[in-house]
Amino acid sequence: MNDSASFVAHARWLIPVEPAGRVLDHHAVVVRDGRILAVLPSAQAREQFADLVQVELPRHALIPGLINAHTHAAMTLLRGLADDLPLMPWLQQHIWPAEQRFVGPQFVRDGSALAAAEMIQAGVTCFSDMYFFGEETAQVAAAAGMRAVIGLIAIDFPSAYAADADDYLRKGIALHDAWRGHVLIRTAFAPHAPYTVSDEPLRRIATFAEELDLPLHIHLHETAHEVAESEARYGMRPLERLAQLGLLSPRLIGVHATQLLAGEIASLAAQGASIVHCPESNMKLASGTCPLPALLAAGVNVAIGTDGAASNNDLDLLGELKTAGLLAKLGAADAAAAPAPALLHMATLGGARALGLDEEIGSLVPGKAADMVALDLSAPHCQPVHDPISQIIYAAGREAVTDVWVAGRRLLHERRLTTLDAAAIVAKTAEWGERIGAADHNQDSG
Amino acid sequence: MNDSASFVAHARWLIPVEPAGRVLDHHAVVVRDGRILAVLPSAQAREQFADLVQVELPRHALIPGLINAHTHAAMTLLRGLADDLPLMPWLQQHIWPAEQRFVGPQFVRDGSALAAAEMIQAGVTCFSDMYFFGEETAQVAAAAGMRAVIGLIAIDFPSAYAADADDYLRKGIALHDAWRGHVLIRTAFAPHAPYTVSDEPLRRIATFAEELDLPLHIHLHETAHEVAESEARYGMRPLERLAQLGLLSPRLIGVHATQLLAGEIASLAAQGASIVHCPESNMKLASGTCPLPALLAAGVNVAIGTDGAASNNDLDLLGELKTAGLLAKLGAADAAAAPAPALLHMATLGGARALGLDEEIGSLVPGKAADMVALDLSAPHCQPVHDPISQIIYAAGREAVTDVWVAGRRLLHERRLTTLDAAAIVAKTAEWGERIGAADHNQDSG
Repeated sequence: MNDSASFVAHARWLIPVEPAGRVLDHHAVVVRDGRILAVLPSAQAREQFADLVQVELPRHALIPGLINAHTHAAMTLLRGLADDLPLMPWLQQHIWPAEQRFVGPQFVRDGSALAAAEMIQAGVTCFSDMYFFGEETAQVAAAAGMRAVIGLIAIDFPSAYAADADDYLRKGIALHDAWRGHVLIRTAFAPHAPYTVSDEPLRRIATFAEELDLPLHIHLHETAHEVAESEARYGMRPLERLAQLGLLSPRLIGVHATQLLAGEIASLAAQGASIVHCPESNMKLASGTCPLPALLAAGVNVAIGTDGAASNNDLDLLGELKTAGLLAKLGAADAAAAPAPALLHMATLGGARALGLDEEIGSLVPGKAADMVALDLSAPHCQPVHDPISQIIYAAGREAVTDVWVAGRRLLHERRLTTLDAAAIVAKTAEWGERIGAADHNQDSG
Repeated sequence: MNDSASFVAHARWLIPVEPAGRVLDHHAVVVRDGRILAVLPSAQAREQFADLVQVELPRHALIPGLINAHTHAAMTLLRGLADDLPLMPWLQQHIWPAEQRFVGPQFVRDGSALAAAEMIQAGVTCFSDMYFFGEETAQVAAAAGMRAVIGLIAIDFPSAYAADADDYLRKGIALHDAWRGHVLIRTAFAPHAPYTVSDEPLRRIATFAEELDLPLHIHLHETAHEVAESEARYGMRPLERLAQLGLLSPRLIGVHATQLLAGEIASLAAQGASIVHCPESNMKLASGTCPLPALLAAGVNVAIGTDGAASNNDLDLLGELKTAGLLAKLGAADAAAAPAPALLHMATLGGARALGLDEEIGSLVPGKAADMVALDLSAPHCQPVHDPISQIIYAAGREAVTDVWVAGRRLLHERRLTTLDAAAIVAKTAEWGERIGAADHNQDSG
């Protein structure tokens, strides 16, 4: 670590997330070599650590870096390609043809860079990805200085990336080996979904996950159709099938979960599995509603994700938290459901725990990596500040994010990206947009 | 009008809203004396109107000014005061005590200025307000150069503003008279809600509205409780009662409408009444869901509103549109419900029609006032641009708004407010925040 990873950040409000709901006025985080050394009152920090650089955040709330627990980063290039369509025409006539034609290492590299720029600007310091050519996404994230958990994708169907289940697994394990021990990049097994991966590869993946000690990241109970199809084909619901195949464990990161029976919620809790809530994607694709208040009440660990930009259409985790809160209150017919601190927990410590990183990130406590986000709450729409946590969830948004650190490195400095060239990324994106749009238009006409 | 209200604005994408869904590439709006003279290709405009100032918006979409059809502007001062509480403790223990203690002309003036700053920055050019001391809100809006429809509030209970129903009406009519003929400020009768205004004043208001040719702005079927209470007290649902009292007409602007029977939707359509959808407030307070797709299918005119900041917690109409779209798709179990052009219509022409202003504003067509908003779509999270309308609704947000004009006057110039002093407003707001927060805290302890 270079010396710039040692400093003292003084915030008007410091929100450590542990303990839940705490807001510290005029407190500082002392960072040494990229790790949090202490959290203490600003005045005291100025005396004790006068030798370090002092970073002033006088109108800001300082929170842990946000964790986007489910996305498909490269799909930013398909953002808004074909909105307001039913799921099947959207997939079959637009998204899949575009992917078949364009997805390759360069698409994934460029789309991941766009996603990284967008996420850093929105306060996301860590993301869990599931897509093809994960090697490219890993390289982009590492170069940008972001933390990422790269999904080792597996699916029964061939793609430009791999020929069959064996090939996906082989490539995935090679990717895992290549990045083993990297300070920012981790991996997770990512069998796409119960309906796209058959029993035999799922069983092998469960075994490998134990051997390599990795999480299992999978779409799960996203739609009622998925559940009905599983019942017809396997005589059981997808979660039960995963349990029989050995995937229901603390490693499991089930994404979406709009269809859960009470008994399933109880098993998820008993097994220590995690659920990733993706409310905007579930709403936009009319998939259903993840029962957030019931999951929280049962003690299930819940993280939050944006899903890919094609079905959201942004990677704005703060916006996602507001939506999650509003949807939980409406769904439970209870304005007290999913209070702001519980929502912030999902995007920080809940995400860290799902990814097996809660000893490293997720809260601002001594010993953890200095992954932090500063939000300037002085704009008219963020005033007055009666409750900073409430303000961040319900009133402020990504536009309030001014500074972002990962392991003490400042990736966003007063709203300026330090590791990525936004203009070059946008120019390259516009080129992709023209090519993809033209092909989509021909598809429509053809 | 001064000469600055004559210019040509060249946009990368021009979205006139009429006809629905149209996007014009590289087009210009020619503005003369605050009105739209022509909409034509940029190249042609540069030749024909070379004598006018040319405003370049090369990365921008230009859309009609957004219309916030329901808010309580002054309540920005109570933003986030007490979130995540059930409706009754929220109202009885926090909002009402704060209002009783603090609401007066200065509170309304300062809160309205904060709201005006926030709304202009978010692309809102016109708002329909309902609160006490509307004279103050009118003055603030006029000074800021915004368009406003000031609600002439009436309620059975006394307040700092008025003693009884007669007093509210007298003050309302005086306010109407004082502002008659103002180019930016209009008025509407605003009986608070069916459950807070009794038959006799409602009947008189219906008569006055006809005589003075004003809209009737009222909370309507916000909760199931409201409907049940009306059935118990009056033996009928609130809408039926309003119909009997003479309020169900093209003048009616019913706000919220989370509880509507099929027959009620049909009557609203038949009578030409308008509904204001406030999805985020309805979700946050767990009130229920306005059946947007059914209203649109029946041909009811639908506008959109943020409601007050206390229950939202912002006045971000673009965010509200995204939420409205997601909620409609989820509620209808149809990803094709409420497509992006229909959502943009709600915030422009739908709002204008509800307020009786559709001949003046709501679309970019020759003859209308030049109320316009430019959004810069070049940030990473707005790229690539496959469909500009979709991008504005689902990916861009208030942070993309760079320029705002009302009647040709530039109220936001490259993100800088030209008629309001943001720093002074924020400083005054922070003072209010401290006083209100201290009183609320004493209330909690008391």
